[in-house]
Amino acid sequence: MLKVSVVRNILEINDRIAGQNRELFSANRVLVLNLMSSPGAGKTTLLERTVERLKDKYRIGVIEGDITSSYDAERIAQKGVQAVQINTDGACHLDSNMVREALGEFDLGALDLLVVENVGNLVCPAEFNVGEDMKIMILSVPEGDDKPLKYPLMFQESRVLIVNKIDLLPYVDFNLKRMREVTTGLNPTQVVFEVSCRTGEGLEAWLNWLEARIKERRAAP
Amino acid sequence: MLKVSVVRNILEINDRIAGQNRELFSANRVLVLNLMSSPGAGKTTLLERTVERLKDKYRIGVIEGDITSSYDAERIAQKGVQAVQINTDGACHLDSNMVREALGEFDLGALDLLVVENVGNLVCPAEFNVGEDMKIMILSVPEGDDKPLKYPLMFQESRVLIVNKIDLLPYVDFNLKRMREVTTGLNPTQVVFEVSCRTGEGLEAWLNWLEARIKERRAAP
Repeated sequence: MLKVSVVRNILEINDRIAGQNRELFSANRVLVLNLMSSPGAGKTTLLERTVERLKDKYRIGVIEGDITSSYDAERIAQKGVQAVQINTDGACHLDSNMVREALGEFDLGALDLLVVENVGNLVCPAEFNVGEDMKIMILSVPEGDDKPLKYPLMFQESRVLIVNKIDLLPYVDFNLKRMREVTTGLNPTQVVFEVSCRTGEGLEAWLNWLEARIKERRAAP
Repeated sequence: MLKVSVVRNILEINDRIAGQNRELFSANRVLVLNLMSSPGAGKTTLLERTVERLKDKYRIGVIEGDITSSYDAERIAQKGVQAVQINTDGACHLDSNMVREALGEFDLGALDLLVVENVGNLVCPAEFNVGEDMKIMILSVPEGDDKPLKYPLMFQESRVLIVNKIDLLPYVDFNLKRMREVTTGLNPTQVVFEVSCRTGEGLEAWLNWLEARIKERRAAP
């Protein structure tokens, strides 16, 4: 009982601060993505490809969440956009308060797109809103097509599913059709892109879709 | 402060029950492994290969930890050994109390080896002992060679590191030497096996090592 009420309390505080973050994002008309996946599914690489292609047209900022280290923020900063590293010191997900503290480093009025790259974890991040407009998840092909059955919350919560590393399809057992049947059941309106960040295949569709969302956000009253 | 003391309290309770589990395992001379990795790194497949090869010589039991579903326990049961499923109902790791409850399903005196397959998560399971003799982790090649830098606790806690999916090395950027330099720094006595559960490469060394540990356990006073 104690445990349950502590968890409920933590989630309530998180949602309250997430709401404040969301108001700030909305007032500044910045589109905010919460990017999540298992470790090594390709979050930072997708972000590198996305930044390379859109940074000359839109003003982009990135928040990098990692337990320790700042390698990912350095990778993104090399692409020429502002990247702020959050180290969670062991915690398995970002929460809205960590993101709020990182926001102090940005001039939100000067951004069109802010991407929050969460800690690599297919479980815990799905439970914590940080104030994002939408959650984007990556499933990489080598992880297997059974993942939606075993980690359903992440698939239910994510507006977009990016299936990455499709260049490895010939070398692993992964049935795209079977996976899509399950994800459609879990989340009928989810938008799905099949890509390879390594070869570039499929990235155009994702980038065009994202660009349309950035424009919508800026046009909102 | 409240949060810190709640966490400390949870870990203390967990360690106390883990100690009780450990006494039970020791009294029955059963070797207990806590098997951990990211989602889709190959825990269940390694377990299938291990069970196939050792089940005629040793008496094996398996505890499968998943957030939801019982697919993995069904896969293992098809190999002809007892498999008990724990569903964590959203929780991101197994704890010692969940394992204690599952132990009621086994005749420990009739087992040589018990493998606890944890929830797929490279973060949280490393913090919770369940009473195991040793933690075994899998890193799969497509996850990338930077994972030890970003998730160091798992690598520090694990007696054995199994590098899986080495058949994919030609198709991804993964530098085994660079990874080993980092893991040696984090955990100098860690035993490392490079395997492909798909092709069978490297499994002999792992199976021979494990067999030696089972024999040691049975010979202990």
